[in-house]
Amino acid sequence: MTALFTPIAIGHARTPFRELSEIPKGPGTQHVATGTIELLPEFEEGLTDIEGFSHLFILWIFDRSEGWALLGNPPGEITPHGVFATRSPYRPNPIAQTTVELLGRDGAKLTVRGVDMLDGTPILDIKPYSSSIPAETLRLGWMEKRGR
Amino acid sequence: MTALFTPIAIGHARTPFRELSEIPKGPGTQHVATGTIELLPEFEEGLTDIEGFSHLFILWIFDRSEGWALLGNPPGEITPHGVFATRSPYRPNPIAQTTVELLGRDGAKLTVRGVDMLDGTPILDIKPYSSSIPAETLRLGWMEKRGR
Repeated sequence: MTALFTPIAIGHARTPFRELSEIPKGPGTQHVATGTIELLPEFEEGLTDIEGFSHLFILWIFDRSEGWALLGNPPGEITPHGVFATRSPYRPNPIAQTTVELLGRDGAKLTVRGVDMLDGTPILDIKPYSSSIPAETLRLGWMEKRGR
Repeated sequence: MTALFTPIAIGHARTPFRELSEIPKGPGTQHVATGTIELLPEFEEGLTDIEGFSHLFILWIFDRSEGWALLGNPPGEITPHGVFATRSPYRPNPIAQTTVELLGRDGAKLTVRGVDMLDGTPILDIKPYSSSIPAETLRLGWMEKRGR
């Protein structure tokens, strides 16, 4: 398999979490921690007009996971599930996605609520959260019985 | 900047779109086209239990875009916006994200509604769509006046 592109860090996350054990996880977890997405200065112009959006998708790298597994047991789950049906960090491409609420911007820094990544995590991309699937139409598979 | 990981294609999209000009775009566009996400056989096990989810996030590569720009004019927009406030394909990391409805699975093939990528596009990841921000709480910045 050949390389498709070369990922670069556009910035880093500043969060309260220094160790994986500090990040809330498991059934029904709500991520409410506040943190900062600090872009490198050369990418600041790419944030133009982002202030108008209430929510963003942050794409980031599971940079402290090694390797991947097609089946895994999420926290609290006895039954293994496929990696593409979970948020496991052990993915063929170690890309994570977090939805955050945008609280404010100061130049190249975004203050956001809902961070669930370790402090110092490399950021790949930021995208506007532009539409929602109505909650009442969602089926959540194995997650349903967990109260999410 | 050093490489952070080496992206690999876990599969490819089969869609009705052979040319960029065939993909609906611009204000208020609804993506309703049906297509297939065909994983490589070695990744099929990673789909275990995905059938229970009604919606998925598909992460894929803008493999037919060259380069990136921090400011750009989305279709129909006179005012330029920052790349991180748009869905522009000209991103520092050329990663795209599409929300699709899962219609069915046959082995390593997922039939989905809502594709907006070219036929043959390399797929990076599939994630369960597990929660929604209620539409009434979303602010959509420059997109608001476009009827999305």
